[in-house]
Amino acid sequence: MRKEMNVGLLGFGTVGTGVLQIIQDHQDKLAHQLGCAVNVKKILVSNLEKKRDVNVESGQLTVDPQEILDDPDIDVVVEVMGGIDDAKSYIRHALENRKHVVTANKDLMAVHGSELLELADKQDCDLFYEASVAGGIPILRTLVEGLASDRITKMMGIVNGTTNYILTKMSKEGRVYNEVLKEAQALGYAEADPTADVEGLDAARKISILGTLGFSMNLNLDDVDVKGITDVTSEDLSYGDQLGYTMKLVGIANRCEDKVEVSVQPALVPHDHPLAGVDDEYNAVYVYGEAVGETMFYGAGAGQLPTATAVVSDLVEVLKNKRLGVNGNSVVIPQFDKKLKKDEEIFSKYFLRIHAKDVPGTFSALTSLFDEYGVSLEKILQVPLNDGKLAEIILVTHGVSKKNYETVLEKLNDTDVVVEVKSSYRVEGEIKK
Amino acid sequence: MRKEMNVGLLGFGTVGTGVLQIIQDHQDKLAHQLGCAVNVKKILVSNLEKKRDVNVESGQLTVDPQEILDDPDIDVVVEVMGGIDDAKSYIRHALENRKHVVTANKDLMAVHGSELLELADKQDCDLFYEASVAGGIPILRTLVEGLASDRITKMMGIVNGTTNYILTKMSKEGRVYNEVLKEAQALGYAEADPTADVEGLDAARKISILGTLGFSMNLNLDDVDVKGITDVTSEDLSYGDQLGYTMKLVGIANRCEDKVEVSVQPALVPHDHPLAGVDDEYNAVYVYGEAVGETMFYGAGAGQLPTATAVVSDLVEVLKNKRLGVNGNSVVIPQFDKKLKKDEEIFSKYFLRIHAKDVPGTFSALTSLFDEYGVSLEKILQVPLNDGKLAEIILVTHGVSKKNYETVLEKLNDTDVVVEVKSSYRVEGEIKK
Repeated sequence: MRKEMNVGLLGFGTVGTGVLQIIQDHQDKLAHQLGCAVNVKKILVSNLEKKRDVNVESGQLTVDPQEILDDPDIDVVVEVMGGIDDAKSYIRHALENRKHVVTANKDLMAVHGSELLELADKQDCDLFYEASVAGGIPILRTLVEGLASDRITKMMGIVNGTTNYILTKMSKEGRVYNEVLKEAQALGYAEADPTADVEGLDAARKISILGTLGFSMNLNLDDVDVKGITDVTSEDLSYGDQLGYTMKLVGIANRCEDKVEVSVQPALVPHDHPLAGVDDEYNAVYVYGEAVGETMFYGAGAGQLPTATAVVSDLVEVLKNKRLGVNGNSVVIPQFDKKLKKDEEIFSKYFLRIHAKDVPGTFSALTSLFDEYGVSLEKILQVPLNDGKLAEIILVTHGVSKKNYETVLEKLNDTDVVVEVKSSYRVEGEIKK
Repeated sequence: MRKEMNVGLLGFGTVGTGVLQIIQDHQDKLAHQLGCAVNVKKILVSNLEKKRDVNVESGQLTVDPQEILDDPDIDVVVEVMGGIDDAKSYIRHALENRKHVVTANKDLMAVHGSELLELADKQDCDLFYEASVAGGIPILRTLVEGLASDRITKMMGIVNGTTNYILTKMSKEGRVYNEVLKEAQALGYAEADPTADVEGLDAARKISILGTLGFSMNLNLDDVDVKGITDVTSEDLSYGDQLGYTMKLVGIANRCEDKVEVSVQPALVPHDHPLAGVDDEYNAVYVYGEAVGETMFYGAGAGQLPTATAVVSDLVEVLKNKRLGVNGNSVVIPQFDKKLKKDEEIFSKYFLRIHAKDVPGTFSALTSLFDEYGVSLEKILQVPLNDGKLAEIILVTHGVSKKNYETVLEKLNDTDVVVEVKSSYRVEGEIKK
């Protein structure tokens, strides 16, 4: 057994710097845990001259990826450069040379994860990516190890800090979307182009990674039904609150028998659900397992140190596995064929807000349409608008199939009494499992 | 390397049965993860004839602990029998014979943990006890591994399901302590003798285990300042709620520089603190680390399958370490000398409810006493009682030392205007770290 393990780092930005710093600061502890030292042999950078916030030895930096990918002394490659094409080609190259890989790259894993994991499996290599979902929460390890002897049936995640910050401010301070978004951009919580966050794409990547692991089924981004938060209004938040719900952008992965359903959308969760209290830029993942019951893991979703800590804990796992001779065994290749639920098999409660004429017969016209499609109502709130010419009607349904609900939504627009369907959201978290 | 690892089970009640069941159901998965099979060779029972809910081979059961403790083929002893004296003597015996140990026994670990861990360290053996604190939450592993490269400064835990159930019902349904306790006993959520739960002792054991691991400092039960929930009234809950707080029985472990403070008490936490939403019989542990920031882990505190799942994950860790040749390295022997904070070094906010005479000069008498000891007020609520003869005054202080606050509490009773000090609670969770 060698006396040290060599690591190559691809990328040396915020996260890469954090990783090197943690390894330097914890040499003794790592050696004690692993029975050997950890040495960062080479770091791929784009600029050799740039001043760094951490100690780097001369010759440790390189601009040539081959110096890492083709060095037979390097055991593990840590990819923290981001982006898709180069990162993917480097990781493939590393795996082909039988190096183990740790990555923090959710974009890459959501799109090419299954291909890379298959290659890792074929090469008997580890490929770990804890930092790709909610850096400050060890959720992937928990799904694979802590809940290894359990059957997970439901995951719900607040996995995007930007949108959770925006919804929290709108909800607690009664402010409107555009204003809060601008503030978030000024504070650096949202990017100049916030599309990937506010349209739900970032959350969709993460829930597809969680669903793939938790259900052992190869789910990609295309399987996720995605809706962002750009249309959420203060009225929706306020009526939701009155009826006992908090609005959150929730990634949902449900399994029933052998079929699954994966989505991201602004959804209303009951005030007393553990996810309802997850505020500001924080993330949380709620998991229901048949043995363990309800669990939730809460923490920072991003940030230099949380993310770097997750990368280092993956690295420790790879090195432990290497000494055990079991590398590649913990690569989770989906065990089950993908079976997605059809719209008639996806059941949920819904919150619906409409503007209707305030005339006799309005409510019976609505309820007869609902009855026709098996939609029954749990909560009703009606408020007069425009001096009583209009009524604002808020309804919460009992469980109904997505197919029937969407048919009703369409038909509502054809009804004489309905002036406008203002908004519609899933209500989640009242039924466990 | 042997083809299988042998395990001896001490105790075959609910948890022991769950452990055997999980090992039987997951043979293939375990062998794949570990590179060898796991065999439960012997099980210590008190009654050989009792019918069991799980398959047992003939000869697998024994009433003689020596058949496990002195069997050179048994690598790991799993203690799930409970109690202190026998369990301790068996675990010592196992460690002396260089067997690794997994235990679910919080009573034992809180009282004799340091002695047993030292013995394990001396013998190069593992001694793991994940199931002793909040079975459904992998919190000890997270403290040791996930947050290995971090410095933890604060832990707050709701770690007793019975008291959390009682406080939740009192708080949400406006009911009184005795009535809810009786209901909890009838439902099996509280024991016939509820003392260890309601007086805070069970929570104290768990927070001393958490504090010892998180701060790497040998904290025992005697170091925990303990107060139970038996005096909590509906009025306290209701006024707390009006001022923005939820009452929880909270185990607190704080570190500042090299000094620590450990306590268990009913405390008021802000409605928007992650712990405030942890209801019914659920448990949660909130951890603040300098790198990772705020995290919280939520789940079932007890139950057969959550607890057995935790035991099996410890067992997997022992067996991995055995193949790595690093057993004993992860035994955490406290690194720092114990330094407890004195009362003048423990700072907190407090909620105080008093009955005072409703006469001119009352408030200035109170405030001049507060001023004298540096107690300043953040929130004040005054309500007339008994047709205005008395005033119910509820105060929330700014941060003040425990010493000064307790002096003020004593002196309040000597003040002419105060009729009775009704209640006093710590207010926690507003200042991070």
